[in-house]
Amino acid sequence: MFHGKVKAVAFDADDTLWVNEPFFDRAKADIAEMMSAYVPAVDFMKILEQTQSRNIGVFGYGVKSFVISMIEAANIVAPGRIKSSELERIIEIGRSMLTNPVEPIAGIEEVLRTLGREYELLMITKGDVAEQQRKISLSGMSVYFDHIEILTEKDEAAYERILHKHSIRHDEFLMVGNSVKSDILPVVGIGGSAVHIPFHTTWVHEVVCEDDLCGREYVEISKAGELLPLLMSL
Amino acid sequence: MFHGKVKAVAFDADDTLWVNEPFFDRAKADIAEMMSAYVPAVDFMKILEQTQSRNIGVFGYGVKSFVISMIEAANIVAPGRIKSSELERIIEIGRSMLTNPVEPIAGIEEVLRTLGREYELLMITKGDVAEQQRKISLSGMSVYFDHIEILTEKDEAAYERILHKHSIRHDEFLMVGNSVKSDILPVVGIGGSAVHIPFHTTWVHEVVCEDDLCGREYVEISKAGELLPLLMSL
Repeated sequence: MFHGKVKAVAFDADDTLWVNEPFFDRAKADIAEMMSAYVPAVDFMKILEQTQSRNIGVFGYGVKSFVISMIEAANIVAPGRIKSSELERIIEIGRSMLTNPVEPIAGIEEVLRTLGREYELLMITKGDVAEQQRKISLSGMSVYFDHIEILTEKDEAAYERILHKHSIRHDEFLMVGNSVKSDILPVVGIGGSAVHIPFHTTWVHEVVCEDDLCGREYVEISKAGELLPLLMSL
Repeated sequence: MFHGKVKAVAFDADDTLWVNEPFFDRAKADIAEMMSAYVPAVDFMKILEQTQSRNIGVFGYGVKSFVISMIEAANIVAPGRIKSSELERIIEIGRSMLTNPVEPIAGIEEVLRTLGREYELLMITKGDVAEQQRKISLSGMSVYFDHIEILTEKDEAAYERILHKHSIRHDEFLMVGNSVKSDILPVVGIGGSAVHIPFHTTWVHEVVCEDDLCGREYVEISKAGELLPLLMSL
């Protein structure tokens, strides 16, 4: 099932170790509802997604970029009509997303504790570095990991660099995550193993077409707790 | 003049290696002028500074935080009256700050090239990591440095960690930068040496009171080129 004897297990962070995307979804829904005074929520969502896509290259990932995109989208759908309180609310939602407590994925800490006895553990995440650092710190989960890597992009080259840096052989490496695009395909692509744990929402920018999956082998499980019997069975 | 035989020379990046603050100053002046339709520029600047101070803890440093603060300040001085084109202009200024070419400080590359032959060179900067990485990459200056560190805060503990990480003795360490608060005081505080190269503008959050300087010894020069004769004279 996996390439060799797994020695190092790496975990994605957002929506694998802790809840992330639902906070963005809730913020979008709140603002779309607020903006429904001007346009139907579904239209606002569409404009927001287009704005986010356009902005990612320049403003990057994370809450601040999201706030700017929400303001820009609001300004597109209701030019010159946005109320002061509406602008305030968008900024306030961003502020609360950056000060929210971190909500661990159910059962994840028990999995990390158990795996840590036998495997080298890595956290490999991407996004705004300050935001990731805040969540790592608040989660208290850094104690479980031998190495923590915050990346700009999770592509094959980035995984190659990490394996090289920590002297991990490709066939001894297993990546666990919720994003097929960032956590599964590039790892399988360089000869590592991967376990996909789908999260109930996936960001539209992380969705890959079915065709990209052709011939790529990886395991899919429904929750982190299933990782233990899976690894024990090897 | 310095504590011991200097072996490692570290450089701050923003406004030491390349121009930074003037881009923020120009953006503030542009937006203050735009907002002068509602309030005198000086009042807008005051509100903007208060907003930035309040936001730094949550939104952090960098252009995206700056854009959000500008929008918030505009919303405070002209509630419900900001034009669509004005909101757009604020976001557009942020976008251009993030895509601007990097402008090296005059003479700095010659200094780095020369010092690199004799000293271990470090770049120690703080701020939004993605923005710093962009500037490092665009500047082409990473070739001159043995180590590059991007920090959240430049305090004594952070400098201690860096010296420990790279096995540099305190009395062999010299820091060069434009900020007394971030580049000079904490380094002198842990027993290192420091050279201050004042930049013609200093961000208001980086200004320290005269009293903090009492009893702190460091050297001040007017431009990077003076570093060479200073170090040669040791």
